[in-house]
Amino acid sequence: MTNQIMVKMVLDTWYSKIKEADDIFNKLTDEQLQKAVVPNRNSGIYLLGHLAAVHDRMLPLLGLGERFYPQLDKAFIDEADNADTAKTPAAGLRESWKKVNEALSNRFNNLKPDEWFQKHNSVSAEDFIKEPNRNKLNVVINRTNHLSYHTGQIIFLEN
Amino acid sequence: MTNQIMVKMVLDTWYSKIKEADDIFNKLTDEQLQKAVVPNRNSGIYLLGHLAAVHDRMLPLLGLGERFYPQLDKAFIDEADNADTAKTPAAGLRESWKKVNEALSNRFNNLKPDEWFQKHNSVSAEDFIKEPNRNKLNVVINRTNHLSYHTGQIIFLEN
Repeated sequence: MTNQIMVKMVLDTWYSKIKEADDIFNKLTDEQLQKAVVPNRNSGIYLLGHLAAVHDRMLPLLGLGERFYPQLDKAFIDEADNADTAKTPAAGLRESWKKVNEALSNRFNNLKPDEWFQKHNSVSAEDFIKEPNRNKLNVVINRTNHLSYHTGQIIFLEN
Repeated sequence: MTNQIMVKMVLDTWYSKIKEADDIFNKLTDEQLQKAVVPNRNSGIYLLGHLAAVHDRMLPLLGLGERFYPQLDKAFIDEADNADTAKTPAAGLRESWKKVNEALSNRFNNLKPDEWFQKHNSVSAEDFIKEPNRNKLNVVINRTNHLSYHTGQIIFLEN
């Protein structure tokens, strides 16, 4: 029962922050996304691709299947924002962002409360015995904060 | 046992995000804090006062005692950033921010795992029966995301 409540607390927050980011991205035109959120910092395009890539990586990390877009990592995780990123068409990234979050949502729904407290795939079985907090639900807590951090930045692209 | 793990997950994230914000605020000079994070948006001073006020309000919300700085609300919660805010001395706000977070930390340490799953003070006993997720730990999850959101903004004041 308590596990179920905890999972609800974490997932409700995740979904509300996804919706908050979605609402901003949907309001922004492709032209607005090309702009840097602050002069000489990341563009909206970069942050959209970055968030899509980070969320895509959650699929294998949580044992929820193969990822869809490993090709996003080079431009949106390994490298900083650059002139090439700005040329990436927004439409494709918007679609990736949507598809990844829908896939996560569908697969989250199939996990039983207790499964959320199992280890994620970046921690060894040995370490997990000592640190049972390194479980799947903790990944969602961390990624929700990562999303909030960048949402605080993309909001600056709104007029 | 699972309650204890869940509390650790949430509080570890809280403390790591407090540290992240602290590190940025400590690096910024009072002069840098006077600047807007983005032209025509909130100043560093405003965000520091805003975060101190919001965290101060967590004390009564979580049943952990009276708050220290109710006078912060007018300038840093009720009103938007304005010319008067910019005149607030940074030193006092830095002190409030530090004191509030230390008080929260001390009182968090005295709560037993099960107490985190009790209702917070903005939900009625009736509603809490239907929505047991509206507990004290959930307040920390939400405020951690609020902090992450604004940390994504104050980082822009660093050179």
